[in-house]
Amino acid sequence: MNPGPILFVVSVTMIAMGDLMLIPALVGFLGGTQDYEPFLESAGLTLIPALLLYLIFRRPGIAIHPRQAFLITTMVWVVAGVSGSFPFVLHEHISFTDAFFESMSGITTTGSTVLVGLDQMSHPILLWRSLLQWVGGLGFMLMAVAILPLVGVGGMRLFRTESSDWSDKTLPRTRDVAARIGALYVALSVLCAFCYWLFGMSAFDAINHAMTTVSTGGYSTSDASMGKYDATGMLWICTLFMVLGSLPFLVLLQALRVGPQALFRDDQVVFFGGMIILVTLLGTSMYETGSGSTVRAWTVVTFNMVSTITTTGFVSTDYSLWGGFFVAAFLFLMFTGGCSGSTAGSVKAFRIQIALKMLSTQIKKLIHPNGVFVVRMHDRMVDPSITSALVAFFFAIGLTVIGLTVALGAMGLDLITALSSAATAVTNVGPGLGDIVGPAGNFAPLPGLAKWLLALAMLLGRLELMTVFVLLTRAYWRG
Amino acid sequence: MNPGPILFVVSVTMIAMGDLMLIPALVGFLGGTQDYEPFLESAGLTLIPALLLYLIFRRPGIAIHPRQAFLITTMVWVVAGVSGSFPFVLHEHISFTDAFFESMSGITTTGSTVLVGLDQMSHPILLWRSLLQWVGGLGFMLMAVAILPLVGVGGMRLFRTESSDWSDKTLPRTRDVAARIGALYVALSVLCAFCYWLFGMSAFDAINHAMTTVSTGGYSTSDASMGKYDATGMLWICTLFMVLGSLPFLVLLQALRVGPQALFRDDQVVFFGGMIILVTLLGTSMYETGSGSTVRAWTVVTFNMVSTITTTGFVSTDYSLWGGFFVAAFLFLMFTGGCSGSTAGSVKAFRIQIALKMLSTQIKKLIHPNGVFVVRMHDRMVDPSITSALVAFFFAIGLTVIGLTVALGAMGLDLITALSSAATAVTNVGPGLGDIVGPAGNFAPLPGLAKWLLALAMLLGRLELMTVFVLLTRAYWRG
Repeated sequence: MNPGPILFVVSVTMIAMGDLMLIPALVGFLGGTQDYEPFLESAGLTLIPALLLYLIFRRPGIAIHPRQAFLITTMVWVVAGVSGSFPFVLHEHISFTDAFFESMSGITTTGSTVLVGLDQMSHPILLWRSLLQWVGGLGFMLMAVAILPLVGVGGMRLFRTESSDWSDKTLPRTRDVAARIGALYVALSVLCAFCYWLFGMSAFDAINHAMTTVSTGGYSTSDASMGKYDATGMLWICTLFMVLGSLPFLVLLQALRVGPQALFRDDQVVFFGGMIILVTLLGTSMYETGSGSTVRAWTVVTFNMVSTITTTGFVSTDYSLWGGFFVAAFLFLMFTGGCSGSTAGSVKAFRIQIALKMLSTQIKKLIHPNGVFVVRMHDRMVDPSITSALVAFFFAIGLTVIGLTVALGAMGLDLITALSSAATAVTNVGPGLGDIVGPAGNFAPLPGLAKWLLALAMLLGRLELMTVFVLLTRAYWRG
Repeated sequence: MNPGPILFVVSVTMIAMGDLMLIPALVGFLGGTQDYEPFLESAGLTLIPALLLYLIFRRPGIAIHPRQAFLITTMVWVVAGVSGSFPFVLHEHISFTDAFFESMSGITTTGSTVLVGLDQMSHPILLWRSLLQWVGGLGFMLMAVAILPLVGVGGMRLFRTESSDWSDKTLPRTRDVAARIGALYVALSVLCAFCYWLFGMSAFDAINHAMTTVSTGGYSTSDASMGKYDATGMLWICTLFMVLGSLPFLVLLQALRVGPQALFRDDQVVFFGGMIILVTLLGTSMYETGSGSTVRAWTVVTFNMVSTITTTGFVSTDYSLWGGFFVAAFLFLMFTGGCSGSTAGSVKAFRIQIALKMLSTQIKKLIHPNGVFVVRMHDRMVDPSITSALVAFFFAIGLTVIGLTVALGAMGLDLITALSSAATAVTNVGPGLGDIVGPAGNFAPLPGLAKWLLALAMLLGRLELMTVFVLLTRAYWRG
């Protein structure tokens, strides 16, 4: 395999990451402290080798073989995670293990953290965390729309071939689609920041939380996460933008053109909306209101559940104290996720939807053995190659969670900590369950090896698992 | 739907159960105590309505429509569970909830128990528990070989069409196959009892444990389960017969005719054997031997792991104290199971095998998008109707465990108790994890509703889920 194109893409990624570090450096510089120095050093560490690689491997008209895309895509995220960790090492003086965990958790929009004392931290480092998630969210969406379909991973094939509405009869060029998605992403982020500010956040907090809300990332500027701003209105604003970040951006773009009916015509969006309403109403009915009002209960339950469903991972309170129903529910809600073509991770609505349809089709077949039943979506038959890809995804995520839980157990973690860490990492949610990694906890006390494995799981989850699984076979590297 | 044939089969089931009660009655009578009375009462309660039903609904040449088989099969197990509970109510004076749980756990060969003080209990009631499992194991095997394939549930179709060896070119009549399976089952049970007795069990304990070993049930005559007889030799004998009970009986019959190479030629058996060796060696390497010998460690780890893999559920010690690796491992081992066509429950080896092959096929497809790859077993392509049935099974078991865990959580159970109870019930294993339902615990303290739900889950698991799922649809009852 020719390493030239791979190293070229790596160099471009590093240049982008290095440039990104100049933003917190500038903020630090304008703030009048010495805070900017670690960011300049990190930028130098990233940009100097990056430019060397760039100059060596730049070729006019680089051609990438589809098969190389698996390795390149994985390398891009690994390199982004590694360079993203430099500011944490140089600014916070934490170990590379912790820094890599924090960086990978950021860039994959997971949101698990090993940092304590966020409320006292300087603006540049908090901004760096938010930027990682914001860029990671956009990067994931563009990857899901532009790259993964080329190599047959992820669910966008389903929507590419079957929803012809958004294309206006002619498929727009990928670059054009990417630009429109980017513009919408920026616009949503600005709007979200403005709303947060309007509802009482400081400008800095509003900008940071907007970046980590729209990207469904979940990093906060406070150890209390959204618990710092848990007024009813604020939680609903956050809920709204987490949901928007979890909708397919192509459908959102269409809705902007033809009106909100575009949303109601999309099978996946309708299913996702229905799932949220059903789960949050059930949750509210199970919540012990005590002396609080029903509206407040509805708000708090909906906010925290939507935060998990959309794989954001903000928390407004320690929901693990709400009782057995909620602990179990929050574990399994990690395996839902937003829509395909959004910033959200995990299983995603369309996979759950098709899985339920496959189950229902199978039951119909048992009742009418001679009948012919097919799984449909958007009024068309779902191609068997899509259902088999989907089944492989379920097996892959199942095996990953099982293997990782057992490995974490072997490191001495109790079952709930091991299982929920494994689940929250591979689904890119953020908080786990239990005293250590739960909503009131922090990933810092975990052993170093556990942090590396969890960071790897975040990467696996972000790359829809199969992208990385392919790299682990001999067949990929042969021939 | 004509209820006649259904009620006829129900009556036959009740007659069989009523007759079965005469065995512990006789044992009690010969023992010279009044212990036989509750069994005679139970037999009367079962036989009198059964004979009435039988006389009313007996028809010459009863024809059963394949579609009725779903309801009839489910009814048979429910009726067996209900009538099996009578002796527990009348002899042990426990609530009907507890009695039904115990009876269902017996007849489905699960092995979870609500009874404490087994060591002090009288012989007839201990024998009744063992008989329930022994009959349940045989009943399940015959159902899997003779009935489920007719309605398209379970994996036997795969072996029926693809393994022509055991049929000697002509498919033997079902009745003949059933008779041979029954004879082998009796022979294995006798041999197992003899070995137990030879290695030091009392005759009564040997007979009871033999019945619950070969049926992969796991009921014991002691609260300590096999901890009462945890000598190295005894544990290996038990391990051997648990494995034998988990092998496909048709392949065992063939091995008796043509020699042990029949076992090595069977894909599923080879995979199952490999899985056991791999898992138990890994387990042994993770076990903290302390002052004990390696052989002892190997014995204890292998015994308890094989007991879970084969869905038997005997325990020789409280393995939940072995550390995080084992707690996680025992949770996931519940979802393995023995071979199709054996007494074992759970997912079963062939489904894991095909799932892994589907995953590997999908990865190959990603690497070579234009290649044609098929899932093979026994050197033949696995029919897509079988893979889609298998996928539906995975979704069904996943949804059942999720739903049940959340429901148990809502009743106040902690996550580990809820999750492991749900898992151990639907996989027909027996012990769960945690202080309450773990290897050292007992299901008695659970709330009544939890016991009903778990008994239902045992039934679901034993009927390969889909048999019951079909009954829950409107389409089944229409037309």
